[in-house]
Formats: sequence, structure tokens, C-alpha cells
Amino acid sequence: MPHNKQVLLDNRPQGEATAANFKLVATETPALQDGQVLVRHHFMSLDPYMRGRMNDAKSYAAPQPLGQVMQGGTAGEVVESRSPKFQPGDKVVGMGGWQEYSVVNADQPGALRKVDTTHVPLSHYLGAVGMPGVTAWYGLVKIIEPKAGQTVVVSAATGAVGSAFGALAKARNCRAVGIAGGPDKCKYAIDELGFDACIDYKQHKDAASLAAALKEACPGGVDGYFENVGGMVLDAVMLRANAFARIALCGMIAGYDGQPVPMKYPQLLLTNRMKLEGFIVSEHMEVWPEALKELGTLVATGKLRPRESVAQGLESAPEAFLGLLKGRNFGKQLVKLV
Amino acid sequence: MPHNKQVLLDNRPQGEATAANFKLVATETPALQDGQVLVRHHFMSLDPYMRGRMNDAKSYAAPQPLGQVMQGGTAGEVVESRSPKFQPGDKVVGMGGWQEYSVVNADQPGALRKVDTTHVPLSHYLGAVGMPGVTAWYGLVKIIEPKAGQTVVVSAATGAVGSAFGALAKARNCRAVGIAGGPDKCKYAIDELGFDACIDYKQHKDAASLAAALKEACPGGVDGYFENVGGMVLDAVMLRANAFARIALCGMIAGYDGQPVPMKYPQLLLTNRMKLEGFIVSEHMEVWPEALKELGTLVATGKLRPRESVAQGLESAPEAFLGLLKGRNFGKQLVKLV
Repeated sequence: MPHNKQVLLDNRPQGEATAANFKLVATETPALQDGQVLVRHHFMSLDPYMRGRMNDAKSYAAPQPLGQVMQGGTAGEVVESRSPKFQPGDKVVGMGGWQEYSVVNADQPGALRKVDTTHVPLSHYLGAVGMPGVTAWYGLVKIIEPKAGQTVVVSAATGAVGSAFGALAKARNCRAVGIAGGPDKCKYAIDELGFDACIDYKQHKDAASLAAALKEACPGGVDGYFENVGGMVLDAVMLRANAFARIALCGMIAGYDGQPVPMKYPQLLLTNRMKLEGFIVSEHMEVWPEALKELGTLVATGKLRPRESVAQGLESAPEAFLGLLKGRNFGKQLVKLV
Repeated sequence: MPHNKQVLLDNRPQGEATAANFKLVATETPALQDGQVLVRHHFMSLDPYMRGRMNDAKSYAAPQPLGQVMQGGTAGEVVESRSPKFQPGDKVVGMGGWQEYSVVNADQPGALRKVDTTHVPLSHYLGAVGMPGVTAWYGLVKIIEPKAGQTVVVSAATGAVGSAFGALAKARNCRAVGIAGGPDKCKYAIDELGFDACIDYKQHKDAASLAAALKEACPGGVDGYFENVGGMVLDAVMLRANAFARIALCGMIAGYDGQPVPMKYPQLLLTNRMKLEGFIVSEHMEVWPEALKELGTLVATGKLRPRESVAQGLESAPEAFLGLLKGRNFGKQLVKLV
């Protein structure tokens, strides 16, 4: 059996997460039992939700256990199989975690999924045609429910969720407005992702200033907002919301570290009769087939060209993850292992 | 034609509203035109939403115009009619405003509604069997959508909306928990209104302390919350919310005066996958017949025995209204004119 390398959660963050919270270890892959397959990971997915699980706090998911492999999505290739369902060479997506190989019980429902890489590159099954893409789809289609011509806004617009959101919104003839950090990301959002406008939140030091920029980018106001960030960005969008605006609340990356970030103007939810709904896409598995079908078609036809930030080698995972939490990535953050 | 007295909005509040914002004037009722009726008001309704309209700010309703009669709901009797739809002696409910008489165009849809006072006292059509009752009904039935056995909480529990909410929740076999100001109100909520528990928020100086009291009153957590207040009370309830809890946002009386009050823990909306929805009952006229029917039956059968705070005479309206904003009323705040 091949040698394996793993990144474990060694200790929990006190405030901000650091590289010292993680530990790299070498190990052996165990011999396969009947029904198991050995997967060599080509790509690991790094996602903001992982930060929340590093805390030992009540949340929607159980905390990441200490001393164990960091959990996370992976895309790779079956290299050995003792299951009739998988053959060596099959391209697969699963939750293999931060390691080079994983042993998977092929009979466990949803543990491993074969994917077709003819028209969609393998890595995209961790992004636009995977959990982040379905997250964007659910928030737009099931919570925001936009009508053609309405204006929808997304924060972290060039990330994996944001780019899928933009393409899905344009496919519904909405005005799609992004919010992102820095002029390069904003240019990319408009030129490559098809957003109608994109605002650089780093140019604004408070919600009022950002709201003024939103007024220009959204002359008809904001009908729907997909929240990946929280804090000042949410406050600013709420100041531009139309009556009956809907907010899909998916991420509050600003609040994961340390103290909660208050919502400054909750009374706007009342005066504008808004609806705000938090969701976790893994609780809505019933929409995945429909969502993945649309997302796969958008990628295969070139209407969604997601960008990736790719770190090289398992050792780079902690630093790449910390960079993601600070918004240093540009597009879907991956670690390439092969 | 009879002499009339009116209370006008004389000037807009700077921060807190005061009696000096209002002006009492004497006038004559005009002669009736064809299609008009003259209504003598027996009761005027005082409601928290009126405070919002006193500001010249963007809100769901147009501001109350300066120099004009304060707008508001009224219940009274037709004393003269030039419309075939109404006869002198008819008991009617309308939006007559802060004055002793009003002239109403009977053909305007919804302007005047005949009511039956056989089993329901006239004044209750401004409270439990009127706008406040329907408000409670909409929030509970259409937004919170509770299942039997779930726990629902309401702030301002002994007010017109809160008392109706309690009776409607008990009719659906929910655990109904109130939040109110002072031991008398809490005792009344349990003894007379049928709440399973009621918490005196004045005994708690911060959200954490109030949340601890809520934990005791709601051992199974909070599944639905009807928000009449905002601020610390909302923060505390959110700390006890279950996964998939729903919040109907109807009032933020704490925020009407002066500065907005932030929501302290918005990330709980995400971690608990909550839904929060603001609404204005006048935008949902389609539910009124069904809601009024249930509310009328609850009152007529003694299952809802709403309490009223009754101020005497038009001159008392400003002070009674300012008291309502400070929570000094006990039950539905009315002004009796006859």
C-alpha cells in the first residue's frame, strides 16, 4: 500500500486561526477490506465553512475532532478497488479530507460519486459543478427566486459560489452585481464572469460609502442578495434593498474569527418587508441533481468559466486555507496533490 | 352639522416624540355630499406604527402630513348618511383619525366596514378582532407556521397583538411563551391570556440574562418568534432559537425613537438556518376574512379576553400615545370619545 501524508487539526484557534493549529503527519494507507476502494486525491477543496468547524462551538455541523484528518471535499482517481461499483481509473468526488489518499466504503450512500471529465475538468467538481455551485443555485433559485429584470447582488463575487451565482443570474436575465476585494477581482468579474457591475469593497471604509457605490451600480435598487461575508457589506446592501427584497444567508466569513459582527440596521428588514433566510446546502440534497445539471451545462458551454487558485502539495494546505479566510485567493481555492 | 375636535401633527419629533408635536383644534363637520356618511367615533386606536409615520423618512407608509389630522383606526356609529349602504345607528370601523367625527366616502373600497356587536364589543374591532389581531394571525399562521407541540414566543405579550398571538398559538396546541414588562403584566399573561409562561424583561439587564430566563421557560428551545420590540429582546430570543426557527418581524418599537438598534448576533441566523421575515398586515388583505373569523370566534367564546387601556376624551390622545411608546399601557390602548 502507498505511503500517505495527512494534515490533522492539532489544536483549536484562540481567535484568529494560524498555521500552528495544524500538524502534518506521514502514515501508511491500510489494506482494503471488501467493499472498499482506495482513492488517490488529485485536488482538495478549501472552503470557508472549515473555519467554523475548527471551533468547539455549537454550530450546524459537529466540530472537527482534534488529532484527526481535516475534513473536506476531494476529487481524484480510484487506484485500487474491492467494490464492484468502482474500477481503477474511475474519476471520483468525495469527502476524503486533507490527505493524499483515502480509503472509502463504496456502499455508504453519497460517500463517493463517479464524475465525467469529458467536458468538465475534474477540479470543477469541487467548485462550480460541486458544493459551491449548488450553494449558489439554491440561494438564487429557492430563496431569492428572482424575476427577469430584477437586480441581484452577491458578495465574494469571484469566489466559487459567487462566480456560479453570476452565471446563474445572467441565465435568468437578471442584472447581476458583484462585490469583491480589489480592482483585479472586479475587472475579472465583469470581463470574464459576466457581471453587469462589480464594486470593490476595499475602496469603502464604511457601510454608507459602500451603499452609495451600490446605488450607482443598482439604479433600480436591490431585489435579492446572496450573502457570503456579513458585516459592513451586509449593512450596505440592506441600505439599498427594495421592498420585499430577499437575502440568502450562506456565509459570514467576517464573523468566524473572534467576536460576532452585529447587523447595523435590522429595522430595514421591517420597513422593507424583507425576507432573510440562512441555509446549508447539504440539508437540501433533493435539489442537487437539477442544480448540477444546469451548472455542468453552463461550464461545458463556456457560459461559466470559473477561476481557480491552486496551491501545490499537501504541505501548502494550511497557508492556502488561511489566505482564503483573508480573501487572498482569486476564485475557487484548491490544493493540487498530483 | 356637529362641532368637531381634531388632533393634528403640528411638527415632527426631534428624537423622542413629545406632546408638543401635536395640536388640538376645534372645527365644524362639513355638510355631506351624495355617497358620504358622517361617523361619530366612539373609540380611537393608538398603535406603535404611528410613531414611524411621524418622521419624514422613507418607510413602508407615507409620512403623516404636517398640519393634518393624525391618521388612525376608529370605531363608531353612523349618525347621518347620504349613502344607501349605511343607515344611522350602524356600528362601523374605519380609519377616521384622531377626531370626534369623520366624513367618509362610503363607495371607497375598505373605507368603512359594518360590524356586529352582538357577541363582540365594538372596541375589540380595533384590537383583537381588528388590525392587531390579524397582524398576530398573519405572523403566526403564514410566517411561523408552527406545528403542534412547538414553542412560540411573543414580545409585548399583553398588548393587542401579543394577546391575540397567545390565544391563536394555544388554539394550535403550541407552547406559548410571552415576554412583557413587569410582574403584573406577566401574571396577567399567564392567568388571563393563557400563556404557558411569561418573562419580565425588566428583570434582565442584558440579552444573556434574558436568554437564561428563556431557557427555563422554553426547555425545548424556541421554534417561532413574533417580534414586536427589537433590540435586546430579539438578541435574547435568537440565542435560544432552534434550527429552522422562524421570526415574524412586525415591530421594532425600540428603534422608532432616535438611532437604529443593531442586531447583536446575526450569525445565528446562519448557524441555525433561520428564516426572518418582515411584514405589514395591510399588504395581505387576502387573509383578513379568514383571520377575523377565527379571532371573532375566539373572543365570542371567551377564549380570548383582551384587556384594554382606555384614555378618556380626545384631549388625552397625545399623552396616551406617548405612554404606549414607553410600554405604560396594559393591553390595547384606546381613546374613548363618547
